Amino acid sequence: MDAAEFRRRGREMVDYVADYLESIEQRPVYPDVEPGYLRSLIPTEAPLEPESYEEVMKDVERVIMPGITHWHSPRFFAYFPAASSYPAMLADMLCGALGCIGFSWAASPACTELETVMLDWLGKMLQLPEGFLAGTDGHGGGVIQGTASEATLMSLLAARCKALRHFESINPKKSEAEILSQLVAYTSEHAHCSVERAALIGGVKMKKVPTDQTFAVRGEMLQAMVEKDKEAGLIPFYFCATLGTTSSCAFDHIAELGPICNKENMWMHIDAAYAGSAFICPEFRPLLNGIEFADSFNFNPHKWMLVNFDCSAMWVKKRTDIIGAFKVEPLYLKHENQESGLVTDYRHWQIPLGRRFRSLKMWFVFRMYGLKGLQAHVRKQVALAKEFESLVRADKRFEICAEVIMGLVCFRLKGSNELNQKLLKKLTKSREIHLVPCQLSGRFVLRFAVCARTTESRHIQHAWRHITQLTFELLQEPGH
Amino acid sequence: MDAAEFRRRGREMVDYVADYLESIEQRPVYPDVEPGYLRSLIPTEAPLEPESYEEVMKDVERVIMPGITHWHSPRFFAYFPAASSYPAMLADMLCGALGCIGFSWAASPACTELETVMLDWLGKMLQLPEGFLAGTDGHGGGVIQGTASEATLMSLLAARCKALRHFESINPKKSEAEILSQLVAYTSEHAHCSVERAALIGGVKMKKVPTDQTFAVRGEMLQAMVEKDKEAGLIPFYFCATLGTTSSCAFDHIAELGPICNKENMWMHIDAAYAGSAFICPEFRPLLNGIEFADSFNFNPHKWMLVNFDCSAMWVKKRTDIIGAFKVEPLYLKHENQESGLVTDYRHWQIPLGRRFRSLKMWFVFRMYGLKGLQAHVRKQVALAKEFESLVRADKRFEICAEVIMGLVCFRLKGSNELNQKLLKKLTKSREIHLVPCQLSGRFVLRFAVCARTTESRHIQHAWRHITQLTFELLQEPGH
Repeated sequence: MDAAEFRRRGREMVDYVADYLESIEQRPVYPDVEPGYLRSLIPTEAPLEPESYEEVMKDVERVIMPGITHWHSPRFFAYFPAASSYPAMLADMLCGALGCIGFSWAASPACTELETVMLDWLGKMLQLPEGFLAGTDGHGGGVIQGTASEATLMSLLAARCKALRHFESINPKKSEAEILSQLVAYTSEHAHCSVERAALIGGVKMKKVPTDQTFAVRGEMLQAMVEKDKEAGLIPFYFCATLGTTSSCAFDHIAELGPICNKENMWMHIDAAYAGSAFICPEFRPLLNGIEFADSFNFNPHKWMLVNFDCSAMWVKKRTDIIGAFKVEPLYLKHENQESGLVTDYRHWQIPLGRRFRSLKMWFVFRMYGLKGLQAHVRKQVALAKEFESLVRADKRFEICAEVIMGLVCFRLKGSNELNQKLLKKLTKSREIHLVPCQLSGRFVLRFAVCARTTESRHIQHAWRHITQLTFELLQEPGH
Repeated sequence: MDAAEFRRRGREMVDYVADYLESIEQRPVYPDVEPGYLRSLIPTEAPLEPESYEEVMKDVERVIMPGITHWHSPRFFAYFPAASSYPAMLADMLCGALGCIGFSWAASPACTELETVMLDWLGKMLQLPEGFLAGTDGHGGGVIQGTASEATLMSLLAARCKALRHFESINPKKSEAEILSQLVAYTSEHAHCSVERAALIGGVKMKKVPTDQTFAVRGEMLQAMVEKDKEAGLIPFYFCATLGTTSSCAFDHIAELGPICNKENMWMHIDAAYAGSAFICPEFRPLLNGIEFADSFNFNPHKWMLVNFDCSAMWVKKRTDIIGAFKVEPLYLKHENQESGLVTDYRHWQIPLGRRFRSLKMWFVFRMYGLKGLQAHVRKQVALAKEFESLVRADKRFEICAEVIMGLVCFRLKGSNELNQKLLKKLTKSREIHLVPCQLSGRFVLRFAVCARTTESRHIQHAWRHITQLTFELLQEPGH
């Protein structure tokens, strides 16, 4: 395909994309396929000779679309939102064309520098303490990671490295393996599964801190565990706090937890993957109070800030902590400006070496929405969640299972877990709306997350009518 | 921005992209900016109110383009190629619009299933042993990782987990920490820096195996190190072979190394990040002989197979090895079809949780180029490298520093490292072509990699004229 054909096909694709998103509501939100459905629909080998573009696009409708879960349908209420906006998609087209791999400053200076400034812009929107920003006298700075999982892992690895160096220096007789076996990390019992996984990868113990009745970690609970572990000869070195847990959007009390971590010389990482976007609104910003005690902080603009996946924003208070942990420097990646002190080589900040020009998406979205537009998006989705909450509360057969603070409503039918499992099964099978469950204090709970950018009040009302209709049918069945 | 405006702006962006790529030769390949250049060109904060699209696009030329290293310029000969093609860009637009996050089968079945089949297609193109393919009776399968660094890390972590379990079971009294401290991994002294980094992350020792005069690892060298380490009480558990090293595109002798790894119960991972694409050509396939001994294999279609970044293809012989290493299973990610045995949940195969629908890019590229088109691309670039090699060989002032097997030519001026450093400095400053150096046996060497899809013979000839012109100037300077 040459540039001339790309101009034609590109226009067609733009229209296909716009058509898809404009008519997405007409598609069942969840696909009706069985595992293995796709293999039989296409050849077993790649073609020897080129095929035409028309043939490929015909197969998009025939092969791909039947197996798509439509995350941007206003009838999608599962997991958490995956951000999507037209400005971000346009920026991604540009990113693909530039196709620069930004592992070092020299590999494409604009790619590195726009990222640093965009993370400063975003940090200011969140009112992060100055020390986290790059364009200040502090020692911090921001980076775009692919996912929150990678941010958590990077923070844990940096903390591990820092702890190892510290304890090796004060106790030179101890082997690294011995210290490693004594290190212990902590996180909420409601933390995302990727936190536990980071500890597995890092080869360190991780303990789950129990939560209060709001599913949040309080200072005293962490303090008690730390005391006990120190007495047993362990070395507490890391705590990952969650602001907005995946199960119920609970908020650990970082203003209580931070001083404990600082006193105990433990790294505090804050994972606000979903909820972080809301902190650009003054009314939600107090939930971030205590950030000043943190060593690193992360949230996903690709969840709730209209920047298409992948774009996970991470800040560290001391860039040397994260850079120093794995600096490996071969000649083919050296460049002239490296030693100037002004230069950021982001490959030292992340697991992969290569990286796309993802800050373009942020730049386009921040400018074309403006801070007010982004705030409006958050507020609208919170209001829709509150609307859904009121509908649930007005129906005595149901109960709300966790305080509704942002765009997530945890609810269930009063009654057994089995009953709620049956309701969810019916919902999934109907393909009219899509939800996933969670577990809260041993109870099977339904999560209703306001996801798509285009979700409106009518979709909330429709979803609730559908849920109550299936509930009515369920309760008619023999045995209920 | 609504769908109607996106239709208009999308068309404009398609034209901008086509214009950019059609006229890329007219831009200096390497930017003329100093570190920190960008910050002063844009505001210090995000705007409060939305700005217009025109304003943003105006700034792309004013702010971004001056700081771009143009990886797709036919005058770019640095690092290794970053793949780019129009079909891949079209597929990426579709991927952005679908915006599904494919962490599990249920999160979008098409996303998972197309990936599995595409990795089978690709595996067949490479004539991988059947056991690596998913659609067979074997236990293997493929996955798209973001980068080769992540593939290496995943393989090392899987090997670590396997070794720990094995040695804990045969020696229950030994602690995990003790075993971990005895584990030792190996790789070539010319392996990519990300291999060393994987060991740092995994918390295991890694030793560099010396290479022969072709910069390749031979069986006897590994065997000798393994023997010595076993005598010292260490546990060899992992070897990462390289096919096509970054420095000089050398090929470790996997047919010798594989049997040693198998006999010693060591995991053999093969990193063929750049060279792997060439194995679709029968004349290069013999370099992959010995793959049957490997536990995992990886290469980057996003380097040399016209699939835009990121797309790193990885296969494992036993899927349970990699999945079992970090399986963490919360309720909100469970789904009905999980236990059927037919389903792949790719989140267990990788570091991040979320993932884009990257197999669409492969599907579009494989079909629109056909196997023959992809082979032609590889062959053309190898021929261009050979053309450059002949030019160098015909000039007695220069020497070739490593056998030219694929699209990379390592060369230097006969004389001191300092002389060659000066030549590279002149080349970089001229911004006419872009190269990076490497180190071979203590010598400073220039790497000339054929990169852009649009590189033709005239660009090779031009590059060589430019190099000899600057060489002439350099040798005129006092002191030479």
